[in-house]
Amino acid sequence: MSRALRAVDIIIRKRDGHELTPDEIGFFITGLTRGDIPDYQAAAWAMAVYFRGMTAREMTELTLAMARSGEMIDLSDTVPFAVDKHSTGGVGDKVTLVVEPLVAACGVPVGKMSGRGLGFSGGTVDKLESIPGINLSLSTEQFKRQLKEIGLVLTGQSANLAPADGKLYALRDVTGTIQSIPLIASSVMSKKLAGGAQAIVLDVKVGNGAFMEDLKSATALAQAMVSIGRKAGRKVVAVLSDMNQPLGYAVGNAVELREALDALRNGGPADLREHCLHIGEHLLRLAGRARTSKQARALLEAALADGSALMKLRQMVAAQSGDVRVIDDPELLPKAALVETVAAPRSGYLAEVNAREIGLAAVDLGAGRAKKGDPIDYAVGIIVHHKVGDRVQQGEPLFTIHANDAEKLAAARERALAAHRFTTQRVRPLPLFYKVLRSR
Amino acid sequence: MSRALRAVDIIIRKRDGHELTPDEIGFFITGLTRGDIPDYQAAAWAMAVYFRGMTAREMTELTLAMARSGEMIDLSDTVPFAVDKHSTGGVGDKVTLVVEPLVAACGVPVGKMSGRGLGFSGGTVDKLESIPGINLSLSTEQFKRQLKEIGLVLTGQSANLAPADGKLYALRDVTGTIQSIPLIASSVMSKKLAGGAQAIVLDVKVGNGAFMEDLKSATALAQAMVSIGRKAGRKVVAVLSDMNQPLGYAVGNAVELREALDALRNGGPADLREHCLHIGEHLLRLAGRARTSKQARALLEAALADGSALMKLRQMVAAQSGDVRVIDDPELLPKAALVETVAAPRSGYLAEVNAREIGLAAVDLGAGRAKKGDPIDYAVGIIVHHKVGDRVQQGEPLFTIHANDAEKLAAARERALAAHRFTTQRVRPLPLFYKVLRSR
Repeated sequence: MSRALRAVDIIIRKRDGHELTPDEIGFFITGLTRGDIPDYQAAAWAMAVYFRGMTAREMTELTLAMARSGEMIDLSDTVPFAVDKHSTGGVGDKVTLVVEPLVAACGVPVGKMSGRGLGFSGGTVDKLESIPGINLSLSTEQFKRQLKEIGLVLTGQSANLAPADGKLYALRDVTGTIQSIPLIASSVMSKKLAGGAQAIVLDVKVGNGAFMEDLKSATALAQAMVSIGRKAGRKVVAVLSDMNQPLGYAVGNAVELREALDALRNGGPADLREHCLHIGEHLLRLAGRARTSKQARALLEAALADGSALMKLRQMVAAQSGDVRVIDDPELLPKAALVETVAAPRSGYLAEVNAREIGLAAVDLGAGRAKKGDPIDYAVGIIVHHKVGDRVQQGEPLFTIHANDAEKLAAARERALAAHRFTTQRVRPLPLFYKVLRSR
Repeated sequence: MSRALRAVDIIIRKRDGHELTPDEIGFFITGLTRGDIPDYQAAAWAMAVYFRGMTAREMTELTLAMARSGEMIDLSDTVPFAVDKHSTGGVGDKVTLVVEPLVAACGVPVGKMSGRGLGFSGGTVDKLESIPGINLSLSTEQFKRQLKEIGLVLTGQSANLAPADGKLYALRDVTGTIQSIPLIASSVMSKKLAGGAQAIVLDVKVGNGAFMEDLKSATALAQAMVSIGRKAGRKVVAVLSDMNQPLGYAVGNAVELREALDALRNGGPADLREHCLHIGEHLLRLAGRARTSKQARALLEAALADGSALMKLRQMVAAQSGDVRVIDDPELLPKAALVETVAAPRSGYLAEVNAREIGLAAVDLGAGRAKKGDPIDYAVGIIVHHKVGDRVQQGEPLFTIHANDAEKLAAARERALAAHRFTTQRVRPLPLFYKVLRSR
């Protein structure tokens, strides 16, 4: 006689450190999705997972169960090989806006469903929304058609993509169970698996402006995601990249889109360009478009130089009903009423440009959300002018604030100033990348 | 600027192993009581407490906060000194039914609100309910009036006594967070503090038929409760007693009441009598009615011998509208249709009379509840005829089943038989008590 599964017994088994079976995980996630298992049981279970962790097998089962809780997009009839890219979130991270048109221009179709920003970390969908008229709520049919026709789609995440993850994430957010590596890894990977990608490049950010503040926990997260991908039969590359200072210079929405457009015009900040080329290399190689990094880089650099990468973004914006004039003339993007450049209060080497504090200063201005559902101001943001290691002269521009409110501007100025730390000693620049992990 | 408290931050502080402040605990329990803090946050918090534990200070604050979540009964205008007795629950534990009339007969007023049984462990209220007509839902006013007039009240727990505990307990039951010493200790003690007792004797059961199966965890629970009592300004004595075999012989409701009446008539099983005298000694000494155990025991033995203890129970039943004829003639108590005595299958010494299995066999018959709210059958139960260490002859009566259903009887017979383990070697009897802890 087989005994019926009960949620409370599954909680107790996890609480006591046992490995849950695929049946138990499937039962729990199906119950949560349908509403048969109440939130309080899911919350207790998540806290037990926080303390006890999960084996690689459990994480994979959880990821698959969450992916299967909604629509599983099949792109095999749409593109020869579907690649995707995911960042764990950071400050000034506009890489998706550059790298995806770039890779698409090199002949590798990319369709991506992105999230919104939360806290100090921005979201691709919010940045794209600075483009008047753009439609970021495509149906699966529209998504597939555009991916086939143009080879590039960037849209918001469908509510039916891994709904169990949506439910569990919302619950974790209010129950102190966000910071659990198995839960983070399965949350990210469930959406990637449901999204239909056959190969995925994960940009795992490390530093004060990231979810994972130290290399050890970021490595553990990357390993967890790579392991899930491998067990689920996908190719995965995880890149660990620095997030102790903003990526590029701009932090906000329209200001970041403008910087991304600069990069697509073969310009923009050197660190942003290098970061995008590196991620692009992995994507082209995974897709079989290039055999070596060198080959891949040559293709990518050509697509930046000949304008085809920018043209690919323009095509996408047009297909998604966005006002393409802002692509041709970024001056038409939303602008803030108050623009103030703050001078360096002293001379010296920059020892720190604290990414988290710069991100929070941008949230203070209205560029981000303190909590889910808050409205955001697309025009506002902060543009830093220096990187860690730079030698700065007193009186030189340190950062520029774009604001729509004098009081908020003052608060952001204080915070952004405090985020810059000077020293008299020479300081080494921060690395862009720490390491790369591969599923095979 | 003081920062507003948020439930999620309190969960995270506990998750990370910090000691919560009285303000944080007060905020959490008030929020839970009012419904401002949802069940899923309370569940995550309870699981964090399960893993991190609580300091003595936190446990006391939690206990006081839960006690204050409802009515705080003040008995100072009713009796000179209010004592109470609590058992953590066991199989065949009818001590309250004997010891409270006994102590009251010795001039120490006792008013007690009791719980119902759950799982293998029975509840005093259920046992009393075998008496036709008895009212076990007294108002606070009725409770105080009867306590003043008769010096004895036994009633069910008012819904307004520590409602936060009621809510939290129901949640813990379904989220795998029952087995947490700080949560068990604060749950018990919150009801005792709200009930107005100035001194409390805790009967902490240890063994397979108890909540705490080993002496170490039972000692930890007893220490936690004694510490809470001391910090809350109450006198507390905790007695650790054996619960590896049923206490007395009878397990059920009417059958246990009958055995309690035997004890009040100066008879009944020796272990039950000794247990009640020991608990009674502590109560008389705490109340200042006796200075030494010897003095106390003399008073108690006299009250059993002269019938005054039985008379006290009769008075109470009459005051609470119960049919007093069952006190005078226990044959009038509810009776089962089927009574079967099972013979010992072999000769030998009894190595085990597994309390939990006997308790579960009684539940199988309908004497207890698998889950809260289930109806119970007052007439059914099991009467064991031997104790661990007894020498039993094959064919001698081993136990008697009182049932109302032939199929259930068969199931209970199997289980109760398997609960008896024989050996050819001489076996030491089990002790009644292991140790005593005192708050001062």
